[in-house]
Amino acid sequence: MNILIIGGGGVIGQKLGRALAARGELRGKVISGITLADIVDPARIPGSAVPVKTVVCNIADPASVAKCVTADVDVIYLLAAVVSAHAEEDLDAGLSINMMGTLNVLQHARALGTRPVLVFTSSIAVNGGEVPQPFTDYTGLNPQTSYGAQKAIGELLVTDFSRRGLIDGRGFRLPTISIRPGKPNRAASGFMSSIFREPLQGRTANCPVSSDFNHYYLSPRKCVENLIKGAELPAEALGLNRCMPMPGRVWTIRQMIDAMTAVAGSGPARLISWEKQPGLDLILDGWRMDIRADKAESLGLEADASFEDNIRYFLEDDLPGA
Amino acid sequence: MNILIIGGGGVIGQKLGRALAARGELRGKVISGITLADIVDPARIPGSAVPVKTVVCNIADPASVAKCVTADVDVIYLLAAVVSAHAEEDLDAGLSINMMGTLNVLQHARALGTRPVLVFTSSIAVNGGEVPQPFTDYTGLNPQTSYGAQKAIGELLVTDFSRRGLIDGRGFRLPTISIRPGKPNRAASGFMSSIFREPLQGRTANCPVSSDFNHYYLSPRKCVENLIKGAELPAEALGLNRCMPMPGRVWTIRQMIDAMTAVAGSGPARLISWEKQPGLDLILDGWRMDIRADKAESLGLEADASFEDNIRYFLEDDLPGA
Ligand SMILES: NC(=O)c1ccc[n+]([C@@H]2O[C@H](COP(=O)([O-])OP(=O)(O)OC[C@H]3O[C@@H](n4cnc5c(N)ncnc54)[C@H](O)[C@@H]3O)[C@@H](O)[C@H]2O)c1
Ligand SMILES: NC(=O)c1ccc[n+]([C@@H]2O[C@H](COP(=O)([O-])OP(=O)(O)OC[C@H]3O[C@@H](n4cnc5c(N)ncnc54)[C@H](O)[C@@H]3O)[C@@H](O)[C@H]2O)c1
Repeated sequence: MNILIIGGGGVIGQKLGRALAARGELRGKVISGITLADIVDPARIPGSAVPVKTVVCNIADPASVAKCVTADVDVIYLLAAVVSAHAEEDLDAGLSINMMGTLNVLQHARALGTRPVLVFTSSIAVNGGEVPQPFTDYTGLNPQTSYGAQKAIGELLVTDFSRRGLIDGRGFRLPTISIRPGKPNRAASGFMSSIFREPLQGRTANCPVSSDFNHYYLSPRKCVENLIKGAELPAEALGLNRCMPMPGRVWTIRQMIDAMTAVAGSGPARLISWEKQPGLDLILDGWRMDIRADKAESLGLEADASFEDNIRYFLEDDLPGA
Repeated sequence: MNILIIGGGGVIGQKLGRALAARGELRGKVISGITLADIVDPARIPGSAVPVKTVVCNIADPASVAKCVTADVDVIYLLAAVVSAHAEEDLDAGLSINMMGTLNVLQHARALGTRPVLVFTSSIAVNGGEVPQPFTDYTGLNPQTSYGAQKAIGELLVTDFSRRGLIDGRGFRLPTISIRPGKPNRAASGFMSSIFREPLQGRTANCPVSSDFNHYYLSPRKCVENLIKGAELPAEALGLNRCMPMPGRVWTIRQMIDAMTAVAGSGPARLISWEKQPGLDLILDGWRMDIRADKAESLGLEADASFEDNIRYFLEDDLPGA
């Protein structure tokens, strides 16, 4: 069982690599190798018992994809993408990486002739427009960002290549991942992690929306568990659409801060300032999402049981010893 | 007002070119030129008062697209496509023409910098899978053919390029066009036209399904009228999804044959044989489509009032003098 993680240098890719290495098996077989491929040389997995390779590759370039999608690969995770703000600023980058890059990986996976399992990470950004909520497994996709449009296109390709028997694909629309470790970033959703991540490390953070703002979230730990379950699902269980929402939970900012206080005491919440960010409401307004991940739940994928859990996962996984 | 019809050599493209030439104006402006572009040199429009040019171009080739998407173009009709059976047999042809060809046209339209109106012909083949009927404006697309997947991708691109203000796009999911003039073809839907077209010309035809088979139809004349209305709609009327079903009507084979008899007497119906075609039921089973084209109807697009009308349109438009 050889596993390739494209985008293996990213936040989810790194956590997935570690979880797979710790697990040692997938789809009932011992994992003999993990390859982390990324456009920037990915960090290794410290102390892995499973042999881990890293490859630098650019999915926008077919020749480069050939270097990582090799004949010995059994399961491919396709996580590489430019995220929403980048794809919105630069349409051609989004088209060449998110759309053509996905097609390049699918074409190389097809060329192997072995029908590899391929797990694609879509996003709740495929939802939007005038489509009435709740968003179910059968709801029309009307993305309002180029990133969302490119992810929706990736979904159609994954399902079509799977229908034709060229790959055994499955795709999951990730909720907003919080608490996301690492440095603050410029994404509009950045505060949804930083208002916990920074105060839990004794640093200040600003919340630019009111405390009743609600959104659809998942912890990185559950996300990785779901991506592993996602790879293990038998093709027959997936039906005629290989792509579906990944379970998440809707929480208000208030509920999440209360959860932080319950787990870590009242100190961190006091480090949050509440300065509204002009224009942000406009961007976020379409984001209150009532998503029903019925199909994924029936297949055994799971949301966090509570945001307290989510806080605990962050402390255990990302601040060990804190 | 210069109009470019890409796929202008095809059945709809030719009829659209004639209708526009006869009309002489579009979007309140006199039509100064019509260009018919196609991979095979398109037939001219006989007796057109509007100057008509023809261009041979292959939308799969960006350099070739540059020859027809020129700075003087105000409205682009993008009809060129390889149809379902072809795209199913040859995935790469479908991807390079239906998907990349569409992107090539959009990129050249964007490069003009004039935000041209672009009318895209999608198909009801975008619908399918386990998605419950009726199929409304907000229903998820789960195509079960590569053709349908590529059309759904085209829709996402048209909406995203329009959202960004790069083009002023609008796309319509065409019902099955019947009665389609010309030679019988190998499409699974071929009989839906040939059982009328051939008997109305004194020739035999076979109906391979039972008389209660029902499907979603539109006459070529109404289709062309809708494509013209589609180009005239103001951008503001289109909302956040630029693509939508085009109105059609569900008829059973029995109702359609009765309509033929009402218009043309009992002779033609006697020329129909009823030999089941093995395997065809399987292909057609997913095709009974309860489609609600609410948005397009509210914008003034129309289905045929009756199948009698449809028979009359065929006699008038395609068998004049018969
Ligand atoms: N984190 C979230 O909240 C979230 C939500 C929805 C969907 N997703 C999706 O999940 C996936 C993983 O997300 P993440 O949070 O780990 O993102 P990330 O940005 O941390 O990781 C993405 C990785 O892809 C790599 N990459 C970018 N362009 C590449 C290219 N051309 N070739 C090869 N590699 C390239 C980047 O270097 C990065 O390491 C992405 O597809 C993302 O769109 C994430
Ligand atoms: N007729 C129907 O029942 C129906 C139903 C749904 C959707 N549509 C869509 O409507 C459009 C027009 O349909 P039609 O019935 O006129 O089809 P058609 O096959 O008669 O016309 C399509 C035209 O596109 C041209 N073409 C193919 N590849 C090309 C390329 N690479 N570059 C340039 N031109 C190319 C063909 O030569 C042909 O003239 C198509 O996009 C079709 O997919 C038709």
